Amino acid sequence: VETIEDVGEFGLIRRVRARLPESGPALLLGSGDDGAVIAAPDRRVVASTDLLLEGRHFRRDWSSAYDVGRKAAAQNFADIAAMGAVPTALLVALVLPGDLPVSWVEELADGFAAECEVAGASVAGGDMVRGEVITVSATALGDLQGRDPVRRDGARPGDVLAVAGRLGWSAVGLAYLESNVPRSQLERLTAGDFIKAHRSPTPPYAAGPQAADLGATSMLDISDGLLADLGHVAEASGVRVDVRTGLLDLSAVHSPVYALTGGEDHALAATFPPGTSLPPAWRTIGVVHEGSPSVTVDGEPWSGPSGFNHFGVSGQ
Amino acid sequence: VETIEDVGEFGLIRRVRARLPESGPALLLGSGDDGAVIAAPDRRVVASTDLLLEGRHFRRDWSSAYDVGRKAAAQNFADIAAMGAVPTALLVALVLPGDLPVSWVEELADGFAAECEVAGASVAGGDMVRGEVITVSATALGDLQGRDPVRRDGARPGDVLAVAGRLGWSAVGLAYLESNVPRSQLERLTAGDFIKAHRSPTPPYAAGPQAADLGATSMLDISDGLLADLGHVAEASGVRVDVRTGLLDLSAVHSPVYALTGGEDHALAATFPPGTSLPPAWRTIGVVHEGSPSVTVDGEPWSGPSGFNHFGVSGQ
Repeated sequence: VETIEDVGEFGLIRRVRARLPESGPALLLGSGDDGAVIAAPDRRVVASTDLLLEGRHFRRDWSSAYDVGRKAAAQNFADIAAMGAVPTALLVALVLPGDLPVSWVEELADGFAAECEVAGASVAGGDMVRGEVITVSATALGDLQGRDPVRRDGARPGDVLAVAGRLGWSAVGLAYLESNVPRSQLERLTAGDFIKAHRSPTPPYAAGPQAADLGATSMLDISDGLLADLGHVAEASGVRVDVRTGLLDLSAVHSPVYALTGGEDHALAATFPPGTSLPPAWRTIGVVHEGSPSVTVDGEPWSGPSGFNHFGVSGQ
Repeated sequence: VETIEDVGEFGLIRRVRARLPESGPALLLGSGDDGAVIAAPDRRVVASTDLLLEGRHFRRDWSSAYDVGRKAAAQNFADIAAMGAVPTALLVALVLPGDLPVSWVEELADGFAAECEVAGASVAGGDMVRGEVITVSATALGDLQGRDPVRRDGARPGDVLAVAGRLGWSAVGLAYLESNVPRSQLERLTAGDFIKAHRSPTPPYAAGPQAADLGATSMLDISDGLLADLGHVAEASGVRVDVRTGLLDLSAVHSPVYALTGGEDHALAATFPPGTSLPPAWRTIGVVHEGSPSVTVDGEPWSGPSGFNHFGVSGQ
């Protein structure tokens, strides 16, 4: 197997670049220079950065390089959409072991390119260094197209809480993967869809700008779990956010626990002024109340498990 | 000692954010939301990303966290300047061991903030995850202020080659550090200036836009070494670039080898049309010739050591 050590830094860069489109809608000057030049017609640019670490955010035996590439791009573009912007570009910095097959990195690049195509963006540049643990650090840029950015601090009592995208699918997929059922069997079960959801999420990119246009008062990307992330809206807005389990779509995930606490689906949650007519992408799941900043489930504090915390310590 | 494990993810984010200015010239909306919003008055944004890995790009016993923060910011902003743009924002993704003292991360943030102030930019956002090896992945953004980006492919025969900033200082500093002279003695010698240069470079940010305004035909940041990086200009422009050692400033670095091959000073190299009157920041060090793409030293191929290659394999 041809490894990174075999082809060297510049060889690897050439091989990766060959997999990526040289131009894109917003890409005025791509990689190959000190910096890329990306269109920012709005005169403001939205930027977000996120990092995936092997062993912590993905496992090579559970996810293909292509999945990892899609996931890294998707979770960053979801942040851009959650501000009400459209993704324009992705920059990627990689730590790669020298004995890693070149084909793994090529498939990773294919994953970046595929998710960029879904989101309407381009890979604009990157960096690669050799190290022990595969690390995928991605930064996404986006254009607001004249919209005001939708923040976390605008939710008001009486607002409707709604979600676009899936809740709990990735967590169910992870649970299946961790259950030690032979993979050959898993793929044939309905588990397959959940596992796919865990391997690479499908955030509802268009729903972000759509919500901004509808006057969303707050919005964010659900990365750590619905309840954990709504906590940020409650804190920033000074409100109580109440989720009604009767309104959640539980047809797929069986238990509300997955929908309430499962992370990494990168759904969007937003609050809208009362009476807003919501298009099909958005599903009403609760309401905003006056009260000390908190998230409640059917009016009560949640006493089940809490969302994923990267440092393993509750910081909420 | 208080560690990252002690304070948790959100505690750490709070502590780091407290060290960073909440607003800056181009920072319209800072961290705390899904994405930051940065001014892009030119309607184009320049973006570049670079990654520092402990053990590979820095050692904790040789560099303070503050130095690492400054260096990570500086090498990214140098890329922005090398396009002819002014730095506006920095996004930082970090891998941090759980047993790392919180104070180390706070000092790292101080380093980001300090270099941002020098460059006129702001820390706009970030991500932190726990892992074994300290990794600092930074993405810089910049504004062209109406200038055309200066690429690598515009050098023409007859152009003058010039450099702004230091050449070889960081490499000399590294050589001192590797020489096992007791640190207490090193600091008192003239070595101190070189070691400082290794720990955190001082790129000549203003010289980048200045060169663009002067009509520079090509420009790039010297990160891997003068000869190695000029190779990119030679390749992209289809020219022979000749460095005249008699024109190099060797008053500080003793040997031309350091100035020709030492990396990480993040000087800027540019080519200018013949007869361009260069301001003091720029020092003429050679000339561009017709010929197959190559870099020569006093008209001859360089037979000394080559520049630093991240994968340890010659890919030139």
